[in-house]
Amino acid sequence: MTLPKKIDVVVVMGSQSDLPVMKAAAKLLEGWGIAVSTEIVSAHRTPDLLQSSAARWQANGAKVIIAGAGGAAHLPGMLASFSIIPVIGVPVRSRAMNGLDSLLSIAQMPKGVPVATVAVDNAFNAGLLAAQILGAGDSKAANAIRSKVAAYKKTLKKSVGESRKRLLKLGVERFLKS
Amino acid sequence: MTLPKKIDVVVVMGSQSDLPVMKAAAKLLEGWGIAVSTEIVSAHRTPDLLQSSAARWQANGAKVIIAGAGGAAHLPGMLASFSIIPVIGVPVRSRAMNGLDSLLSIAQMPKGVPVATVAVDNAFNAGLLAAQILGAGDSKAANAIRSKVAAYKKTLKKSVGESRKRLLKLGVERFLKS
Amino acid sequence: MTLPKKIDVVVVMGSQSDLPVMKAAAKLLEGWGIAVSTEIVSAHRTPDLLQSSAARWQANGAKVIIAGAGGAAHLPGMLASFSIIPVIGVPVRSRAMNGLDSLLSIAQMPKGVPVATVAVDNAFNAGLLAAQILGAGDSKAANAIRSKVAAYKKTLKKSVGESRKRLLKLGVERFLKS
Amino acid sequence: MTLPKKIDVVVVMGSQSDLPVMKAAAKLLEGWGIAVSTEIVSAHRTPDLLQSSAARWQANGAKVIIAGAGGAAHLPGMLASFSIIPVIGVPVRSRAMNGLDSLLSIAQMPKGVPVATVAVDNAFNAGLLAAQILGAGDSKAANAIRSKVAAYKKTLKKSVGESRKRLLKLGVERFLKS
Amino acid sequence: MTLPKKIDVVVVMGSQSDLPVMKAAAKLLEGWGIAVSTEIVSAHRTPDLLQSSAARWQANGAKVIIAGAGGAAHLPGMLASFSIIPVIGVPVRSRAMNGLDSLLSIAQMPKGVPVATVAVDNAFNAGLLAAQILGAGDSKAANAIRSKVAAYKKTLKKSVGESRKRLLKLGVERFLKS
Amino acid sequence: MTLPKKIDVVVVMGSQSDLPVMKAAAKLLEGWGIAVSTEIVSAHRTPDLLQSSAARWQANGAKVIIAGAGGAAHLPGMLASFSIIPVIGVPVRSRAMNGLDSLLSIAQMPKGVPVATVAVDNAFNAGLLAAQILGAGDSKAANAIRSKVAAYKKTLKKSVGESRKRLLKLGVERFLKS
Amino acid sequence: MTLPKKIDVVVVMGSQSDLPVMKAAAKLLEGWGIAVSTEIVSAHRTPDLLQSSAARWQANGAKVIIAGAGGAAHLPGMLASFSIIPVIGVPVRSRAMNGLDSLLSIAQMPKGVPVATVAVDNAFNAGLLAAQILGAGDSKAANAIRSKVAAYKKTLKKSVGESRKRLLKLGVERFLKS
Amino acid sequence: MTLPKKIDVVVVMGSQSDLPVMKAAAKLLEGWGIAVSTEIVSAHRTPDLLQSSAARWQANGAKVIIAGAGGAAHLPGMLASFSIIPVIGVPVRSRAMNGLDSLLSIAQMPKGVPVATVAVDNAFNAGLLAAQILGAGDSKAANAIRSKVAAYKKTLKKSVGESRKRLLKLGVERFLKS
Repeated sequence: MTLPKKIDVVVVMGSQSDLPVMKAAAKLLEGWGIAVSTEIVSAHRTPDLLQSSAARWQANGAKVIIAGAGGAAHLPGMLASFSIIPVIGVPVRSRAMNGLDSLLSIAQMPKGVPVATVAVDNAFNAGLLAAQILGAGDSKAANAIRSKVAAYKKTLKKSVGESRKRLLKLGVERFLKS
Repeated sequence: MTLPKKIDVVVVMGSQSDLPVMKAAAKLLEGWGIAVSTEIVSAHRTPDLLQSSAARWQANGAKVIIAGAGGAAHLPGMLASFSIIPVIGVPVRSRAMNGLDSLLSIAQMPKGVPVATVAVDNAFNAGLLAAQILGAGDSKAANAIRSKVAAYKKTLKKSVGESRKRLLKLGVERFLKS
Repeated sequence: MTLPKKIDVVVVMGSQSDLPVMKAAAKLLEGWGIAVSTEIVSAHRTPDLLQSSAARWQANGAKVIIAGAGGAAHLPGMLASFSIIPVIGVPVRSRAMNGLDSLLSIAQMPKGVPVATVAVDNAFNAGLLAAQILGAGDSKAANAIRSKVAAYKKTLKKSVGESRKRLLKLGVERFLKS
Repeated sequence: MTLPKKIDVVVVMGSQSDLPVMKAAAKLLEGWGIAVSTEIVSAHRTPDLLQSSAARWQANGAKVIIAGAGGAAHLPGMLASFSIIPVIGVPVRSRAMNGLDSLLSIAQMPKGVPVATVAVDNAFNAGLLAAQILGAGDSKAANAIRSKVAAYKKTLKKSVGESRKRLLKLGVERFLKS
Repeated sequence: MTLPKKIDVVVVMGSQSDLPVMKAAAKLLEGWGIAVSTEIVSAHRTPDLLQSSAARWQANGAKVIIAGAGGAAHLPGMLASFSIIPVIGVPVRSRAMNGLDSLLSIAQMPKGVPVATVAVDNAFNAGLLAAQILGAGDSKAANAIRSKVAAYKKTLKKSVGESRKRLLKLGVERFLKS
Repeated sequence: MTLPKKIDVVVVMGSQSDLPVMKAAAKLLEGWGIAVSTEIVSAHRTPDLLQSSAARWQANGAKVIIAGAGGAAHLPGMLASFSIIPVIGVPVRSRAMNGLDSLLSIAQMPKGVPVATVAVDNAFNAGLLAAQILGAGDSKAANAIRSKVAAYKKTLKKSVGESRKRLLKLGVERFLKS
Repeated sequence: MTLPKKIDVVVVMGSQSDLPVMKAAAKLLEGWGIAVSTEIVSAHRTPDLLQSSAARWQANGAKVIIAGAGGAAHLPGMLASFSIIPVIGVPVRSRAMNGLDSLLSIAQMPKGVPVATVAVDNAFNAGLLAAQILGAGDSKAANAIRSKVAAYKKTLKKSVGESRKRLLKLGVERFLKS
Repeated sequence: MTLPKKIDVVVVMGSQSDLPVMKAAAKLLEGWGIAVSTEIVSAHRTPDLLQSSAARWQANGAKVIIAGAGGAAHLPGMLASFSIIPVIGVPVRSRAMNGLDSLLSIAQMPKGVPVATVAVDNAFNAGLLAAQILGAGDSKAANAIRSKVAAYKKTLKKSVGESRKRLLKLGVERFLKS
């Protein structure tokens, strides 16, 4: 096992069952040329890896941690406790509580240990927020990422604009069939 | 600072502001001659103490941990992750969510890491449950504790019985004024 | 009908429809050589069996009761009322309220009658918690169970570790296809 | 302690702290000449009184049971399990969950054991519903109670009508000051 | 269209889509020889039928009304407003809120106008509660119904008892396959 | 009692205890010269007034009804059932459920009978929405009201602008003291 | 792309995925000869179109805006901020929170900026409410719409009446099979 | 009015009533020598300022926006729509829903427009998260901020450690009195 040497962002989850949700964050960031390490560390099953992982990631240059978990979701908050870099939390939708437990367990952190919480199951937004954070500096690299965010925002706008035009042209019924 | 040598039960909370709620557990157990260590360890502010505290308590003979926390309440779950002895969780009532966040963050633990959750703010019941656990063995000490639980249950019954009789005797209005 | 002579743990539920959820507790404990009696007793349909069952189980040596129920889930709380041994409650997911009713009906017990509540539908954790309680004593048997809990915790860690390595080796896409 | 000989309605609660809420039921019924026994029986602290109390009440002629409880409110449901007469449940407002736990614990009963649930803290309505039930028969006594319910409904209407007129006459500002 | 001449219980719902849920009430009562009229009256779409229906039912001898509705469920409460006989409300599970809206809209009635609320979608229990109410009187007919309720309670107990024995005999795995 | 001859908007509530909340709607509209009738009609205590009141208001020219209620809040929905003019619902905050019951009982209306729901306790917004509806026509009166709404929107903007400037000028601490 | 010249009602949504829900509003209004423009404008992806769209719609004569959105549903509230005409909000059911997030994000607007909120996913009711608003004036056109609303209300009543009769004629079982 | 020339972080809220909550963010950041502009901009009352403010702030060098709002809290999400820099949202506790509406309105943002949500009323954490974001770069300034975050984390740990020691030394009763 060789761990990535240099990391910009860590995408970490407590269980491999979270991967189908969490991969959207990794995919977005890798597509933009950002060095991502996607890992599995469980707050509850491998608690002794929390501190060492957080230390290793920061030693390897990580600037943001994205952590996803469901139910009594402790992974984001515990990594925030062991880090000084920003931690983004993705509440993964749970079966019994539809993600309300995940959302409250991640968002309601006490004074001194924030987790930047995004919407339930919205790992894509966690990736985008990580890119915005990387783009917050003044370096050339930061500027480059900021441009990508700006460009992405334009595609969002364009795609809505195209739906909008097509709907105005086709009308409701033909649009729905198209 | 001298830590207790021999501990039966640890009563631990994340912040001194939880003490007015959590002291009911310690008081009950101490009243029954059980060795209690009441401590403050924060999952979020002193995360590096979690593992060492759990190890120390178990080395000192602790058989049960009672942990109280509010909001994104990670303390009980993280101590359960670092322990093989039973952990009882007390959801402390939070201001914004009335304890719903605390309850879900403590109860909804994943497979392999249970926390024995009691009612919101009900630290007394956590103490009683700890006594029941200590009383589950076959030793003389266990028998003695079991007797205390049984005796307590009788006082519960007796006290309801007395209210019941007084109400039947006095009637509603005089009972309420008495 | 011959009832088990000697019982360590009772796994009880209100209806046979709870069995697919509750069997995880019995299976774990039996696999560890713990004497389990799995029974159906309904708080609402066979209320007169509550007291006698609780008495019989304790007479037969039961040290922990695991009770599962859904909706207005009274079984765990009522068995706790009739027992001096610890009662673990499993909130079974209900159709209309997704288990929120089950969770609140089991967890929010009044002073003097605790139920050790685990996550919705998480009977496995109830079994594990029962083993931790049996392992809380100083006897040889308790030590043996504690070793099994410790060994189980290691397999948890190992299994996460293996997923972790495989993900680092294969990367996200190949991992998901494997 | 002399228990009432002949009872029409039992008003029962788990704790004397519920009496300020529950007394509204007893007061309404007694005011209408209906024989009420107001008692304290706790599902959790005096569980062995459930069956005998239910039997005694039915033997003494009780036709309706009104039971109030808060939190994991098991009293109404357990009395319904031990009775064949209708049981009305009053969810008493709890501190942490504002009565949502009480409401769900009382209303969400399984097939075969209904509890007639009224609004949180609305013991008056429980008393009125009990009167409506007593008035459902064809006897002279039933007719007399039905007349009282009908008369009460008229006073409700009249009192709204008077507020209505006074508001139309005085206008908002003077009405609020009056 | 010929309306039933003599009615004991009305089972009414706001829409034919509620019939698959509500029919359990009618079926139970008819099976016990109780005269039931099953009707569709919508609080929102046929509001002018509320008052006249309630009057007609009472004129035809109805002693209990069972009303089912979902969402902003006003039918039970409005019929209670127009009646002096007891009204039982069945919260029908709604799509968006899983029946929480239905439950609150039916249970949280103001002082003076109770609705006897049962569990979400539990029309069977509404039927049983109606039978218990009919059985609350002293007449021969009431006694007969009370006997049926008592007999039904015994079948409940018996059916649980049989599951219980079969499970003890077969064990978990064979029971689940049987 | 003389009822207003000509009404533009009715402000109606189920109980005089709702008046302190509901008066904000009446006050806004009267201040703009709109003919308001503020009345008390209870869906549950004066149900037979629903249909006749709705008819009378429409006969007297009412174009909008504003109805406030709490708990199982049926008044807005029932008036919508009896009217063809728009009905605005104000969920009044309830004690036990903090207005969640009021909001769901008012908003979750079935197909065919909309209620225009505003925020909990926000009767001012109900008044403003009524003015916007009166201003939706092409008449001179409608234009006049539309101008008032537009002017009000400008004062909103201006007042925020002034706070904004003062804060920028004074800074946080001096602003808070001012 | 040619935009409609003259608009009475705008039906707007944030994403084409909302169209299957929202089309019910457009279809109802168009069927009644009301000029509708159905458009896609996203509060979050095309925020700069909010102000200009609101201005354009009002310039083209729009009298009501119907806006649908899900999750953190900002579209209705933001259009209300940029408009002086009434805005109707349709909370579209979200996956994780079943529409509770959508409902609260739309209904809980602050003083000065009301949104007329209808039930989750109930775009039909939004259309009907828009028609009621158009019918609130005194013009010939308003009268015509009011007649259509009145006629629609009659069909509602008639359709319930027919179900009612068929159920009374066929009985429950045959009705369900028919 | 002179606006700050160079801004690192904007702390913005919709109303001056949010200032007592939001000032904790500004105070923390200013104390660390970070250039903060604390402003009032309302999404609902000054919607036309959203786009221009976001543009101005970014032109003046802002790297992070902290936005606080309550109820249907649109300010954070709308600023995120108009910005490419990270936006942190603070859900301000609302009266009726205790902040659940604020939390869901801010956290549940759609794909493409994340808001970094912190706990209800926890503006301090928003300030700390902003500092962590500013510290994510490689510049000398970033390093300096990162050091401050690290130092703050140490004071957190130290303060818990001191409470911990004092509690062990004094015991529960004397600690509570001290």
